[in-house]
Amino acid sequence: MRVLFAAPARLWDDWAPALRAACPEIELTRDGAPDSFDALIYAPGYPEDGTELDFSPFVNARVVQSLWAGVERIVTNPTLTQPLCRMVDPGLAQGMVEYCTGWAMRAHLGMDNYPQDGVWRQGMTPPLASDREVTVLGMGELGRAVAATLAGLGFDVAGWSQSGRPVEGIPVLAGDQLELALARAEILICLLPDTPETRNLLDADRLALLPEGATVINAGRGTLIDDAALLTALDRNHPGHAVLDVFRTEPLPPDHPFWSHPRVTVTPHIAAETRPATAALVAAENLRRAMRDEALLYRVDRMRGY
Amino acid sequence: MRVLFAAPARLWDDWAPALRAACPEIELTRDGAPDSFDALIYAPGYPEDGTELDFSPFVNARVVQSLWAGVERIVTNPTLTQPLCRMVDPGLAQGMVEYCTGWAMRAHLGMDNYPQDGVWRQGMTPPLASDREVTVLGMGELGRAVAATLAGLGFDVAGWSQSGRPVEGIPVLAGDQLELALARAEILICLLPDTPETRNLLDADRLALLPEGATVINAGRGTLIDDAALLTALDRNHPGHAVLDVFRTEPLPPDHPFWSHPRVTVTPHIAAETRPATAALVAAENLRRAMRDEALLYRVDRMRGY
Repeated sequence: MRVLFAAPARLWDDWAPALRAACPEIELTRDGAPDSFDALIYAPGYPEDGTELDFSPFVNARVVQSLWAGVERIVTNPTLTQPLCRMVDPGLAQGMVEYCTGWAMRAHLGMDNYPQDGVWRQGMTPPLASDREVTVLGMGELGRAVAATLAGLGFDVAGWSQSGRPVEGIPVLAGDQLELALARAEILICLLPDTPETRNLLDADRLALLPEGATVINAGRGTLIDDAALLTALDRNHPGHAVLDVFRTEPLPPDHPFWSHPRVTVTPHIAAETRPATAALVAAENLRRAMRDEALLYRVDRMRGY
Repeated sequence: MRVLFAAPARLWDDWAPALRAACPEIELTRDGAPDSFDALIYAPGYPEDGTELDFSPFVNARVVQSLWAGVERIVTNPTLTQPLCRMVDPGLAQGMVEYCTGWAMRAHLGMDNYPQDGVWRQGMTPPLASDREVTVLGMGELGRAVAATLAGLGFDVAGWSQSGRPVEGIPVLAGDQLELALARAEILICLLPDTPETRNLLDADRLALLPEGATVINAGRGTLIDDAALLTALDRNHPGHAVLDVFRTEPLPPDHPFWSHPRVTVTPHIAAETRPATAALVAAENLRRAMRDEALLYRVDRMRGY
């Protein structure tokens, strides 16, 4: 099985050994005749000359396996007619759970209410987690994992997804119940994909529905929130704080107002790190399924865009 | 059943309604003839003239129920011959779990490695929790609850207790294995009681056993750690950070070096708040048991001191 590593060269050293270890039967290479390949491992930034990859000559490719969870930079490529699969890395999911849990706990406990200035501040006892309402926007693999972990810690968790498809143990609100989902969210965790429907989902009107002093944690996509509306809303303490890991432009420019706003915490897109050791196992499984003509894991629905 | 509220007056408004709701059959009062009382609800700071309470006239008291978990200020009172019970409040335990979990997550994720200075710092991906070794010192009610929660989040948790008594799902090291317990502790959570054996348990030699950059979270008692040794050890990055909620003197004096040390975070004894609504249920159960001459919950062993 011949596989093209259609990803930036800097990724080769981490990924090639992991992929070969997970799938010893593949012949993984960085170039060759397009029609000689059975599959592509893909990451944005390939080819490195800045052009968009033309998938049409890969007439024998049975799958394009993305290395990353987000596929918005490839799904609109009109030359891509082969089956496209997102990466759903169990290591990434666990890392995302830990990121969201940690920042949710920081908000919940009011950890930032204790400046180290010699003043002994008592009487700000937070409610127990069971009395803290958390909403998770987006109930895909990641949203479900985060919601389940927070519910396990005792939080009063609800999910929201366009379909409202039920999830065991977590109430899930559906598309037209977004207002309810926001109005209860003392802590709002955004884990939606970037699609035409989710862009600027959190605009001025919707941010205003959040409880006063709420915390927004965006670990999904930078496009979910209207940046200017968020800055205005923060100045009104609706929400009271935003923890942002994803941005419209990354790296976030040094002069962007998010960096200096006292109610914004910027992290450099660290919540969801795909880890080669665990992700390569998923890619290997899909390569094998493609060769056996079996159903692929995490195949992208072009209509939904994810 | 007559019960004396032997606690500071400021506690009355919160506690009297909760105790009466939990145990409608009691006659709860703040004064009366000592020999008329069947039980005492006790908290330090009573009597309010600063003298130590003389328990000897309470000849008919069948139980002294502490409102707090820590009883070191009463257990050495030679006039106290009645059965003494600590408070083990499920709300307190949950609050303690949340405090320790939140601060452990903050350390684990390296949340403080991202100053908001416009610099996009990638490449500091923390290990997954499963690759993070956490030790919990003290495997009583609180230690077990914290250890179980952290293990549930995926951390590699071990406990340590003098007895080494087994706990389901958590390996527990025994008294003479303290060095092992410390040497593995990237995150060390201290939940021991204050006893002659635990005072200054973490001295210079033992702190030096911690991994470089380790985080110590002390939510037990201020006396567990040698303050001066900790400050010296922090300057050597062994440990790299201390989160301290309990102190030898509380409130911690404004000029104490802990406040200004860049590797110390002080919180004002907030980890374990006894919550009247849940704690009153436990007190009520013990009052009933005392009247029926049944075994009391959480009775203090005077030899162990807790």
